[in-house]
Amino acid sequence: VSEYPPAHWCSRAWFSGFSGSAGTLVVLPDRVVLWTDGRYTIQAAQQLAGTGIEVLIGSDPGCPKVEDWLCEKLGRGGRVVCDGRQISAEVGKRIRSVLESGGVELLLDLDPVAEAWQGRPVLPPGAAVVHAPEFAGESVAQKLEHVRERMVKQHATHYLVSSLDAVAWLLNIRGSDIPWTPLVLAYVVIGPEEVVCLLDERKCDEAARTHLMEAGVSVHPYGTVRDVVAELPTDATLWAEPKRTCAWVFDAAQCKVVDEADPVQALKAVKHELEIGHLRECVERDSAAVAQFLCWVEGSLCAGEPVTELTAAAQLERIRQQDPRYVNRSFETIAAYGEHAALMHYGATATSDVALARAGFFLVDSGGQYLDGTTDVTRTHPCGELTEQQRRDYTLVLKGHIGLSRAVFLHGTTGSHLDILARGPLAREGLDYRCGTGHGVGYCLGVHEGPHSISGGTNSVKLEPGMIVTNEPGVYREGEYGIRIENMLLIREQRETPFGRFLAMEPLTCCPIDARPVVAELLSDEEREWLNAFNAECCRRLATRVDSETAAWMRQVSVEVCAG
Amino acid sequence: VSEYPPAHWCSRAWFSGFSGSAGTLVVLPDRVVLWTDGRYTIQAAQQLAGTGIEVLIGSDPGCPKVEDWLCEKLGRGGRVVCDGRQISAEVGKRIRSVLESGGVELLLDLDPVAEAWQGRPVLPPGAAVVHAPEFAGESVAQKLEHVRERMVKQHATHYLVSSLDAVAWLLNIRGSDIPWTPLVLAYVVIGPEEVVCLLDERKCDEAARTHLMEAGVSVHPYGTVRDVVAELPTDATLWAEPKRTCAWVFDAAQCKVVDEADPVQALKAVKHELEIGHLRECVERDSAAVAQFLCWVEGSLCAGEPVTELTAAAQLERIRQQDPRYVNRSFETIAAYGEHAALMHYGATATSDVALARAGFFLVDSGGQYLDGTTDVTRTHPCGELTEQQRRDYTLVLKGHIGLSRAVFLHGTTGSHLDILARGPLAREGLDYRCGTGHGVGYCLGVHEGPHSISGGTNSVKLEPGMIVTNEPGVYREGEYGIRIENMLLIREQRETPFGRFLAMEPLTCCPIDARPVVAELLSDEEREWLNAFNAECCRRLATRVDSETAAWMRQVSVEVCAG
Repeated sequence: VSEYPPAHWCSRAWFSGFSGSAGTLVVLPDRVVLWTDGRYTIQAAQQLAGTGIEVLIGSDPGCPKVEDWLCEKLGRGGRVVCDGRQISAEVGKRIRSVLESGGVELLLDLDPVAEAWQGRPVLPPGAAVVHAPEFAGESVAQKLEHVRERMVKQHATHYLVSSLDAVAWLLNIRGSDIPWTPLVLAYVVIGPEEVVCLLDERKCDEAARTHLMEAGVSVHPYGTVRDVVAELPTDATLWAEPKRTCAWVFDAAQCKVVDEADPVQALKAVKHELEIGHLRECVERDSAAVAQFLCWVEGSLCAGEPVTELTAAAQLERIRQQDPRYVNRSFETIAAYGEHAALMHYGATATSDVALARAGFFLVDSGGQYLDGTTDVTRTHPCGELTEQQRRDYTLVLKGHIGLSRAVFLHGTTGSHLDILARGPLAREGLDYRCGTGHGVGYCLGVHEGPHSISGGTNSVKLEPGMIVTNEPGVYREGEYGIRIENMLLIREQRETPFGRFLAMEPLTCCPIDARPVVAELLSDEEREWLNAFNAECCRRLATRVDSETAAWMRQVSVEVCAG
Repeated sequence: VSEYPPAHWCSRAWFSGFSGSAGTLVVLPDRVVLWTDGRYTIQAAQQLAGTGIEVLIGSDPGCPKVEDWLCEKLGRGGRVVCDGRQISAEVGKRIRSVLESGGVELLLDLDPVAEAWQGRPVLPPGAAVVHAPEFAGESVAQKLEHVRERMVKQHATHYLVSSLDAVAWLLNIRGSDIPWTPLVLAYVVIGPEEVVCLLDERKCDEAARTHLMEAGVSVHPYGTVRDVVAELPTDATLWAEPKRTCAWVFDAAQCKVVDEADPVQALKAVKHELEIGHLRECVERDSAAVAQFLCWVEGSLCAGEPVTELTAAAQLERIRQQDPRYVNRSFETIAAYGEHAALMHYGATATSDVALARAGFFLVDSGGQYLDGTTDVTRTHPCGELTEQQRRDYTLVLKGHIGLSRAVFLHGTTGSHLDILARGPLAREGLDYRCGTGHGVGYCLGVHEGPHSISGGTNSVKLEPGMIVTNEPGVYREGEYGIRIENMLLIREQRETPFGRFLAMEPLTCCPIDARPVVAELLSDEEREWLNAFNAECCRRLATRVDSETAAWMRQVSVEVCAG
């Protein structure tokens, strides 16, 4: 399981041409229907135009659920085939229960496209690379010890690790099988004594083989995972999280199953001392790259040299690539000028690309995978003249950003409790961003990582010292512009008093936040102090990391914001 | 089910002498153990001193759970007797599942104290009184219609109403069976056509009988509720919330049970237009009483007349009783001087009572039951000289209070999301109060009402326009003093924009918040503005409701707080 599945398993996109990240495609003899959600209404209509495929938006009122719809269309005695490798056990169970109550059979161990798909991409052949001990936080042995402690508490004899980032973290290996994320296709099964890694042998060079052997991990063919699970002793107790395990493997277990949350997610979310040390430095280098890039944008615009969304993104990539520890982007850069930035997940293409004018905002949300960390940062650059509303919105987003950054809170607090600190200043003016405020970030792993987050809803995971979160409130005005200001924050101990243990957050990102668009009187004294101090600290920390031109630019955008 | 059970069912207190509101008493042949929580550590030690009863604090790390402890002590083949009338079905189920997995049997239909308890209080005989249509929000017929709509959605044919406040709300009757709450002991079972009220006939006078009859409600003896539930048709579907229904009744059902949250809790939490109109006025009258009382306290102290905690509480009661719609206190008044106020639930007794000196704080948390509403308000009165720390703490509590009061938030937000607004300003200084920030309030019903609340944890109930919450952050310094500032807030629509539907809160309480202890420079401009505007509004609204002396006192405590 990973955020971006390899193309080999993208049969929905192959069959329909719809490339959205969420959807269910149902193929009946006489009609084909795609369910997706509100984010993709426009995209699905465009991509499926002329195919004859019907589109349903699951979030629309009155839209039937796939499984209810299937029951109705097929009736008792019907039979549905779905590739159990492509859905989680949790989803499989839910669908099966509805279908069966409607007398419809669900087959999860057949791949309906296996024969039809000509030229299907093979499974990615990326190598498994050892994450060098100088960068990895703890040894495999230490990590296994933490996991086994938790297994004991759950009375689990075995634990199936299905999330690719959990596998990578646990075994201190990295790969290149998944877009934007240095992961390798593999499973791990931890038993009472033995640890088995299900992994294509050809991915391992001598170093990886030695590393795994020394860690006591034996390697078995990737495709045998289902057999390994099926053949566990009947008196075993297997820990496997249904949400993170595909139905095809999960359903094979013949023994007792503990379906609690995957323990590695909680373990890896709390960064180790050594990881934190690396991360601080890594994010600092990445911030220097962003500062240099923004200085370049401003300089180019002033000099009348053409800058487009795509050339800008390429320039940013070039700057990041100068870092010897840089591996790749951590997601496709969002370089969005003007109204493009109102689309929260805009990705410029050759046809959409526009040149920047000397007015309005240029939003750049980007991040890098480094051997010593993963980064995610957004700055909204003022390209020239701004309207009063643009300045106000920018300041309100900043107020939200500062509100969350300054939070001090009791241990036991969750990200759901803190979300209002970022959203509140916008809500007061009738504004909102329709997404969470922040997410965890991996360490040379996925840029989106749980189990914690900063968002509405009811995430009940407590924030712990050592966790990373992003802080990214925004304002998105359709057809006009988009503003987002994003730092990575490290949660840490603040102090302990007779009243409790208090935590606070430290910004890791240290690229200045442009103070020039700020409407000073909308900020409180404390907010102005925070901004001035943050920018001064950025200038100080990056002073030796950037060229003199960028240093001068940083001082310029860090203009002190004063009352009145 | 109600917050304060009648003495007839207080067997824990009868057996042990411990009067705390939370606890589990386990009686073994050779030892007696009481489990309670951290709030009662001191009280339990005091009340059980010399009894030989051991005390365990469930919230302490390493403290075993009652059911695990029982399994261990009794071993397989053990047998536990517990009165199913005194625990909810939810608790019964949880305990039973653990005990049974340990081979211990649980009997819930015996009352272990029935024979031993000499002079056991009988069930309270209070009358069922019609809540006059001019005060009740909607008719019984209208309320039944709302409930039946929800029953249809849950495919429930029957619905067992077990919470006494739900019964009172639904039938528009009030009583006097429960301390501080105008409730009558009764159950209601709503069927497809019929509505049965299980109620001691002797409680009904002619008016009540006519009222119920006209509403189509037939009255059956209170004690037959278990039979009524047991005798429901086997093809019926009974809606009953396990948390709100005693195990003794719940377990009697032979039919299918829907165990979703009691629909009346959600319905009655959203106050009807007519209730809101009454409440605004009711809380205003109550605020006037509190203002008059505080003016009396200050005047008496200045005149050198003795004021003690108990005489003060009695004076407040006398003032409230002048209101023709006043019924009773809504909880025992907390009138706590000096260090007494550090105990969050202090109740003065003849032996603890102290006279107020002209220094430090006097905390008074009180409320009234009125025919047209229920109130809850806390003011912390400066009796004279204050220390710097006292002024700072007072100001920080006020900051928290204002933070929550000023909240503007998207519809969909819960009280758990807003808690940090009140707690945050205190956390920044290493302070916290070890309780929630606020609770719902009934309408001539319980002063503590759900299903919403303002608190940490994960209350997932959305705040809706028409809901009432209290806002009561505090600082409690053991052995020194306690500070709490509490208003009742009404949630209401603020505005709708393309970004969403926004809600805000209106203070119903309009007794001034004493501005004299405030450290002005700790407040932001916005907080100062809020306080000054709030106090000015209180003076305006209460002007015609208080005597001239109190009016002058209100202006005095409402001294404008200015920057610098």
